[in-house]
Amino acid sequence: MDIKEIHSPADIKGLSASELIDIAKQFREALLFKLSQHGGHVGPNLGMVEATIALHYVFDSPVDKIVYDVSHQSYVHKMLTGRVDGFIDPAKFDTISGYTEPNESAHDFFTIGHTSTSITLASGLARARDLRGDNENIIAVIGDGSLSGGQAFEGLDSAALLKSNFIIVVNDNQMSIAENHGGIYENLQLLRETDGQAPCNLFKAFGYDYIYVKEGNDIQALIEAFQKVKDIDHPIVVHINTQKGKGYAPAEIDREKWHWEMPFDRQSGELLNIDESEDYNSITGDYLIKEMGRDPMVVAITAGTPTVMGFDAERRRQAGRQFIDMGIAEQDAVSTASGLAKGGARPFFGVYSSFIQRAYDQLSQDVAINGNAAVFGIFAAGVVGMNDVTHLGWFDIPLISNIPNILYLAPTCKEEYLAMLDWAMKQNMMPVAIRVPGGRVISVTDRTFPTDYSNVTAEVVSEGSKVAIIGVGDFFPMAQKTAEILKESGIEATVINPRYVSGLDKELLENLKANHSLVVTLESGLLDGGYGQKVDGFYADCDTIKVLNYGVPKKFLDRYNISDLLTQLRLKPELIAQDIKAQLK
Amino acid sequence: MDIKEIHSPADIKGLSASELIDIAKQFREALLFKLSQHGGHVGPNLGMVEATIALHYVFDSPVDKIVYDVSHQSYVHKMLTGRVDGFIDPAKFDTISGYTEPNESAHDFFTIGHTSTSITLASGLARARDLRGDNENIIAVIGDGSLSGGQAFEGLDSAALLKSNFIIVVNDNQMSIAENHGGIYENLQLLRETDGQAPCNLFKAFGYDYIYVKEGNDIQALIEAFQKVKDIDHPIVVHINTQKGKGYAPAEIDREKWHWEMPFDRQSGELLNIDESEDYNSITGDYLIKEMGRDPMVVAITAGTPTVMGFDAERRRQAGRQFIDMGIAEQDAVSTASGLAKGGARPFFGVYSSFIQRAYDQLSQDVAINGNAAVFGIFAAGVVGMNDVTHLGWFDIPLISNIPNILYLAPTCKEEYLAMLDWAMKQNMMPVAIRVPGGRVISVTDRTFPTDYSNVTAEVVSEGSKVAIIGVGDFFPMAQKTAEILKESGIEATVINPRYVSGLDKELLENLKANHSLVVTLESGLLDGGYGQKVDGFYADCDTIKVLNYGVPKKFLDRYNISDLLTQLRLKPELIAQDIKAQLK
Repeated sequence: MDIKEIHSPADIKGLSASELIDIAKQFREALLFKLSQHGGHVGPNLGMVEATIALHYVFDSPVDKIVYDVSHQSYVHKMLTGRVDGFIDPAKFDTISGYTEPNESAHDFFTIGHTSTSITLASGLARARDLRGDNENIIAVIGDGSLSGGQAFEGLDSAALLKSNFIIVVNDNQMSIAENHGGIYENLQLLRETDGQAPCNLFKAFGYDYIYVKEGNDIQALIEAFQKVKDIDHPIVVHINTQKGKGYAPAEIDREKWHWEMPFDRQSGELLNIDESEDYNSITGDYLIKEMGRDPMVVAITAGTPTVMGFDAERRRQAGRQFIDMGIAEQDAVSTASGLAKGGARPFFGVYSSFIQRAYDQLSQDVAINGNAAVFGIFAAGVVGMNDVTHLGWFDIPLISNIPNILYLAPTCKEEYLAMLDWAMKQNMMPVAIRVPGGRVISVTDRTFPTDYSNVTAEVVSEGSKVAIIGVGDFFPMAQKTAEILKESGIEATVINPRYVSGLDKELLENLKANHSLVVTLESGLLDGGYGQKVDGFYADCDTIKVLNYGVPKKFLDRYNISDLLTQLRLKPELIAQDIKAQLK
Repeated sequence: MDIKEIHSPADIKGLSASELIDIAKQFREALLFKLSQHGGHVGPNLGMVEATIALHYVFDSPVDKIVYDVSHQSYVHKMLTGRVDGFIDPAKFDTISGYTEPNESAHDFFTIGHTSTSITLASGLARARDLRGDNENIIAVIGDGSLSGGQAFEGLDSAALLKSNFIIVVNDNQMSIAENHGGIYENLQLLRETDGQAPCNLFKAFGYDYIYVKEGNDIQALIEAFQKVKDIDHPIVVHINTQKGKGYAPAEIDREKWHWEMPFDRQSGELLNIDESEDYNSITGDYLIKEMGRDPMVVAITAGTPTVMGFDAERRRQAGRQFIDMGIAEQDAVSTASGLAKGGARPFFGVYSSFIQRAYDQLSQDVAINGNAAVFGIFAAGVVGMNDVTHLGWFDIPLISNIPNILYLAPTCKEEYLAMLDWAMKQNMMPVAIRVPGGRVISVTDRTFPTDYSNVTAEVVSEGSKVAIIGVGDFFPMAQKTAEILKESGIEATVINPRYVSGLDKELLENLKANHSLVVTLESGLLDGGYGQKVDGFYADCDTIKVLNYGVPKKFLDRYNISDLLTQLRLKPELIAQDIKAQLK
């Protein structure tokens, strides 16, 4: 059977064992066909080919409901549920998302992109089924890495009490994005080594029935296991031992690199477009490694994404015990950082803008109320970041800048970033977050940057009159370019780098009243609750200053085109200049 | 020895077993002396008297560092560390906080009031110690209830890998605030029943060494256990079996009621000031119970605080399986609600404003992106709520109202609350949060309230000119009173109930431009990122309308006096009226 003929899981129900193996081969081929040209999650999908086939062979989706954690392992599921074209037809590669998506298929139940949610989301479906009086199977699929997130543990704990069908498939590929970190992984190892027989069993301790499948890439072994648990009347964990990157040699060997990859040459595994340009990840890693050598109290922390702050395997080795991977546990990372700072260490937690959302309460309670001087690097923030709806970098300014006691700095270039980072890591007065610029590294050598930000004020980069343009962080160059365009019309704009977004330089804003009638704010983030609205609040009772705010409206966008979005939001220097001229008329 | 003579833990080091028992008796007496007059956490502190004495007998605080989870069991710790006056001298009751507080004592390491943080905070102290090359003991104390929070699990998982001293004391009193819920509690029960010998052991599965103390209210048994683990070179869990409410009969019997209590008569256990007035908790509980009878798909969810939504033991019994307690697991509660809504149920999650902070990411990702029509009741929001720095109700508007796709309604009175709640529970279009008014229930019978909020607009309650006052939620009556005062000066203000804070009624705001020059916003929440700043943003480029925003500045306040704070913020009708008159001059 050709996978092109698969339109729904029903199409594979009658196949023989060898036909299923052939299907698996074709799926793996399709994965490599698309991923080598398009990029995406390589390892997680290759490892789950057999399990996904077995799940759909045994269960009757979408009546039976399969919920994938993070859903970066759901590509085969997509092929099995009518979306094979999205993998084998290059023209259709972008018609399907990299995650499960209910708008694409009735077989997808949630739009998911953050980890550790599948058990709790699926438990909601199970509870709803019980209230309805139905009896379909509810299956949560979760990777061993995702188990380290607090939400997964909470879900494991509460769902154990269900008195009805609930199946958790633990896809144990012995890896997170990087290697796993946490005490539970020793128990998973013990379970693998004892073929699931060890009496001390994490899942049983949480209250689950349990079976182990040693050959997690053997379709028949998986079918047998899933048939055993189908229609079970209580919660059970099916622990399957899979190989991440299975079937593609480079991905089997370097499992961290191949978790997610850009387009590559299938033969060699070499990337097609190697970007040798400097990035903020490496700049951060280099800085921290240097500081660690100087000061044994400097600590770099990650929550399962070490390379966001440049900690590839080599830098992790160099850092030794001055590097900590908490597992995919942002809450733990933030609060451990607070404890480290309290204990006299100098912690830096590097995290994606989208993932710091997991730790709002810890930032507020454990860090800010306590005033402990931990440092947070917020990466991939802004419009020029990841463009999947589950990974938007727009929300960190409203999230962090409205917490008292945290200084949220927004550097505009490499030199300013390093100046702020260096000050933050050496002070011991306050919690500091730094919004690492998105996009390409910009180097500025014609401005100097302060070495002390404890009483930070805004920087007036060029002084003009009538209109002042405040460009936040990575949008500062846009403020400069807008001013250049205005100059052609004889308007000398004041250009301001606010340096921080957690508050206002009120003295400067007050002084602008003297000879300005328009203030423009540009921020690479949400307008609602953002920096611009703080400026609006400042001038709200002033009748001589108008304010124009540029930023992102309060919407979730999925796979947007950056340039189109910026044009639509009039976030282009020539459009902003037009608006300003219209206002000044 | 009289406990008045205890100034530091050193004072009890030399005492005999019988002297320690006498000290425990005096502490218990002091607890009841203060709590019966002042109110506070009764059960947790009574249960930990012996363990706290034993901890300070064995360890050398503050060099050895004890971190209490939630810290509502830290009163005896406070008495042992120089703060006994705060319990035995009524004039000094309010000089100490109800939680650990570094500003009070070098023996307190963190300001804590949310659960499940002690392991991760203490692990930070342990890691800092290791970097410094020191060797003091680090002890995290955590209750069995608090173990159900994701942050506790994350901490358990990561701290298990420490290669150094780390002691977790699990204070197992077999209760959360209400009864425990979760699969792990069956394992704790098994461990208690087997005197800690069961081979399937949650803590060992997380990678810990483990000992069990059956007599957790026996000082000598505890001393023996703590001496055994003192200076240990690896992580260990000391599981102690204690009795919540120990030594006070009413609290031993009704452990839920006596978790936290208002002032009471010691003999009878009767409350001294019984407040028979209606409250929003019971109103909510009554509504939900009624709806459950009508619709089997209605579900009430709590994360360990069932009475916030009126679900006392009797309503829990009535609700049967239509009531779910997730444990202290707000992330799980929010995402399970999303799954329930997706599965066709009508979930209501009732939660304190301060605790919903734990689930920002789940609200954004699992609920809002997915658009699942779960309903969230946000209680104790606003200035008139809990006034401890760790329990402030000021942050929920910036938190929730800046997430796309969630409608955040702010009712002004009981009738409007019920109208909004009823609509929210019966619609299936969107996620809805309701900011349940703080303070006393206000009943309004001279206005009618819509039954449909799917295209909600603001309500113009009285139409005037020049000045419009927008009173959000529980501050709406303040807008009305301000208008009454202004009337005396011949100013007819427009009074507006915005009804929702997640967006603006732009048509109305636009129309105000015709005959108003001043718009005033009153909100019982943070100014930064709040509703008023959205209004500021709307009028930012308008030069005929000024805006005055009233609300709370971005600060953490501890144990503030509500009336003083409101005066200071000019949040009193007469002061607002003064400001308005000054602006209109």
